[in-house]
Amino acid sequence: MLILVTNDDGVHAPGLAALAETLQELGHVVVVAPDRDRSAIGHALTLHAPLRADLLRPGVYAVDGTPTDCVNLGIHGLLTSRPDLVVAGINRGANVGDDITYSGTVSAAMEATLMGVPAIAVSLDGRTFSDAEFRHAARAALLISRKVLREGLPPDTYLNINVPAQPIRGMRLTRQGRRRYGDMVVEKIDPRGRKYYWLGGGACDFEQADGTDCHALGEGYISVTPLHLDMTNFQSFTFLAQWNADVVDV
Amino acid sequence: MLILVTNDDGVHAPGLAALAETLQELGHVVVVAPDRDRSAIGHALTLHAPLRADLLRPGVYAVDGTPTDCVNLGIHGLLTSRPDLVVAGINRGANVGDDITYSGTVSAAMEATLMGVPAIAVSLDGRTFSDAEFRHAARAALLISRKVLREGLPPDTYLNINVPAQPIRGMRLTRQGRRRYGDMVVEKIDPRGRKYYWLGGGACDFEQADGTDCHALGEGYISVTPLHLDMTNFQSFTFLAQWNADVVDV
Amino acid sequence: MLILVTNDDGVHAPGLAALAETLQELGHVVVVAPDRDRSAIGHALTLHAPLRADLLRPGVYAVDGTPTDCVNLGIHGLLTSRPDLVVAGINRGANVGDDITYSGTVSAAMEATLMGVPAIAVSLDGRTFSDAEFRHAARAALLISRKVLREGLPPDTYLNINVPAQPIRGMRLTRQGRRRYGDMVVEKIDPRGRKYYWLGGGACDFEQADGTDCHALGEGYISVTPLHLDMTNFQSFTFLAQWNADVVDV
Amino acid sequence: MLILVTNDDGVHAPGLAALAETLQELGHVVVVAPDRDRSAIGHALTLHAPLRADLLRPGVYAVDGTPTDCVNLGIHGLLTSRPDLVVAGINRGANVGDDITYSGTVSAAMEATLMGVPAIAVSLDGRTFSDAEFRHAARAALLISRKVLREGLPPDTYLNINVPAQPIRGMRLTRQGRRRYGDMVVEKIDPRGRKYYWLGGGACDFEQADGTDCHALGEGYISVTPLHLDMTNFQSFTFLAQWNADVVDV
Repeated sequence: MLILVTNDDGVHAPGLAALAETLQELGHVVVVAPDRDRSAIGHALTLHAPLRADLLRPGVYAVDGTPTDCVNLGIHGLLTSRPDLVVAGINRGANVGDDITYSGTVSAAMEATLMGVPAIAVSLDGRTFSDAEFRHAARAALLISRKVLREGLPPDTYLNINVPAQPIRGMRLTRQGRRRYGDMVVEKIDPRGRKYYWLGGGACDFEQADGTDCHALGEGYISVTPLHLDMTNFQSFTFLAQWNADVVDV
Repeated sequence: MLILVTNDDGVHAPGLAALAETLQELGHVVVVAPDRDRSAIGHALTLHAPLRADLLRPGVYAVDGTPTDCVNLGIHGLLTSRPDLVVAGINRGANVGDDITYSGTVSAAMEATLMGVPAIAVSLDGRTFSDAEFRHAARAALLISRKVLREGLPPDTYLNINVPAQPIRGMRLTRQGRRRYGDMVVEKIDPRGRKYYWLGGGACDFEQADGTDCHALGEGYISVTPLHLDMTNFQSFTFLAQWNADVVDV
Repeated sequence: MLILVTNDDGVHAPGLAALAETLQELGHVVVVAPDRDRSAIGHALTLHAPLRADLLRPGVYAVDGTPTDCVNLGIHGLLTSRPDLVVAGINRGANVGDDITYSGTVSAAMEATLMGVPAIAVSLDGRTFSDAEFRHAARAALLISRKVLREGLPPDTYLNINVPAQPIRGMRLTRQGRRRYGDMVVEKIDPRGRKYYWLGGGACDFEQADGTDCHALGEGYISVTPLHLDMTNFQSFTFLAQWNADVVDV
Repeated sequence: MLILVTNDDGVHAPGLAALAETLQELGHVVVVAPDRDRSAIGHALTLHAPLRADLLRPGVYAVDGTPTDCVNLGIHGLLTSRPDLVVAGINRGANVGDDITYSGTVSAAMEATLMGVPAIAVSLDGRTFSDAEFRHAARAALLISRKVLREGLPPDTYLNINVPAQPIRGMRLTRQGRRRYGDMVVEKIDPRGRKYYWLGGGACDFEQADGTDCHALGEGYISVTPLHLDMTNFQSFTFLAQWNADVVDV
């Protein structure tokens, strides 16, 4: 088995090391990860500039790009054969609800799926991110990875996994939750008198609806959310179908 | 009506100017756009650094961030009141199929939706991108924007609109297509002897399945694809439910 | 005459436009400037990544690099023949004293000098930077440029010119002044609880010694400081010569 | 003794580690270095954005800025007291001749000098950069650092030190050499059909004049070049003095 491991916290992050080490139980692991923290980078792909890949040590590449770049470059350029699995993580902090659209970790798994390679994204909830917690989360990633390698995944589908920091009560199959937005922007003045702005200065919260990733995580369960590439809202077709007539004379 | 206009080709792009000018028919337009080309940046959000907003001229802000940043900062920071609509575009080149996950234009509309503001993303297919074509696409954006302002959109749903370059035959309600990946990485050597890599060196192609955005566009129709925020693959729940028992002892 | 004009405030800056327009009196002007603000970038050269040059309109290139990159790429790549002169500016704000080592404007002139092309850097003091002031400074740049084209410059030497905002009393040949450093760092906490730092939060001041650039400028004179490439402190050779014996057994 | 160590190859570079470890013989060493490779960044200072400093481990900070930022932030923000010495290096590759104006390593020493702290920049010539070579260069840095701490440096003066890869024959006091420019730009086409440019594609060479840094280095000697902050070309004053009359009527 050949497993490509990446993340968005950067190639020097402890969560990546824990994951890569643990997955060696399943086969050969190659790390292709950003040379620095690229959190919240979403599914950004570097097309306007070329990429560099530094071989830091055998089996570990640092790329001056995004997690999506790493998966793309890894599969099409750096790895000598096609990987059997891509695992992204272990992210410092949960990736749940609508926030997964910003996540470099989840987007790395999305990119692998676009390339036809089974993929999972793994994140660790909490605040301390101790080595023990990372090892625990890596263990969960190992079990689920083994399952994926044996059973496969539905077409165009990847898994978003969140591991709680507290004692783990089990695992739950979940859906993507919703965020309640209290967001605001914080305006400041720099030492030279120019304004600048921080995004995300407000309180942040998730709807604690049953069945969601955030709810399961809050209850102490590992959340496993199957995601797919199709963002079409088919349910809205009926509503929108009537528009056609009105706007058709463009 | 207050309309926030943004894009991912940058604040100086002609497609943005055409769009902003045309939408003035509907109300007051404020442009908040990246200070430079930020194509393929996905739903990247700038959290680790603050943002700057330069008022280039009345109603036009250049932000040193991503399209997602522009929408977030515009709604929560720069605009004096909440916009009634966010329109992103007009992108140079179609945004169809799975490639929309990379698109800064589509992600800007996604961000507005997360903030509860109706939103559409508009892209122009083709290769020449003449002023006349941009005006034509802006006209289509105007008609659809008017419709959205009057009728609203289903919850958590935004529209991804692609306008063909050729004579327009009408409009079609579509779903997100699939890309056929022939991608590869192109390896090169720089003048100092170091390797570098270009992503996306292979042929690129979309499945021409009936009902998809790419198919409608290819036939000369404006494609209107309703997208939502939920990426959960509910159909996979049955398949994955059986896993629970096996992996539960994490 | 072929004149290459660049700056570090970016290709859309009004000071650049005033300069380029005014210098057309001397010959053909081509602008090659950074696509955005690259102030305080020093003599940074982009070697690890390639550059892009967008032809915004005839004779105006935007480059995604530093002022030094622009001069290098302009001379060796974009211009069809070797320029007779490189003029950088008009910078928003004076470039005097030790601060010139940070200046992208001054470094652009340095780069031209390294390439054997006569060069001057032009900066405007003050706070308002009105169009009238920029035109005034451009006029000064024109007169000095004409002189340089006629008389040449000493080998490996370029001119750093600062124009006062107030009514101009004349021109003075000056030396590089000294800064008195009251600098400090301002520590802040971002909305997510992480520290960040602004450089340069302290008062800033220049020694008002006779003969210096800052002194002349403060008195209302245009300062013209001839700079060269050699930073060797020859006067220190005597002091250091005695070291040789002691450290020679490395 | 408190010694601040930085570089421009990034905080994970082996040359930095060798230097920091060796200098512990002289006192307490704190590393404040860029979080990634920032070669050829010149004297760039980050004023438009704030900086982050991550404490990687006790006494080692990674800063998301330039070498100049690291020295500035280290002295004014991170270190608890003023350092007695700043040492930048060990750079992968020589920093000689006019190329020192591009060097982040040399600029770090320049920044310390601006802040009134004695400083040296250390670079290793060659191509292999083995651990043994870095240790050797670090040893040379140690000897010279000890000397600087004991004897001090002339006002506003810092040392640029280059260590040959081959067996070292001794040390020489040198002046800044000259580069012979055969530079050119290499134009390429990316996989999407857009042009891009590499700087520095030509042959590169230094004048082998006696007494220069590059000459000494080529002969197997450590070059020690005292540099100062004043770039004024005083010798050109006579030539330029006559201009005054002509251009004074600005």
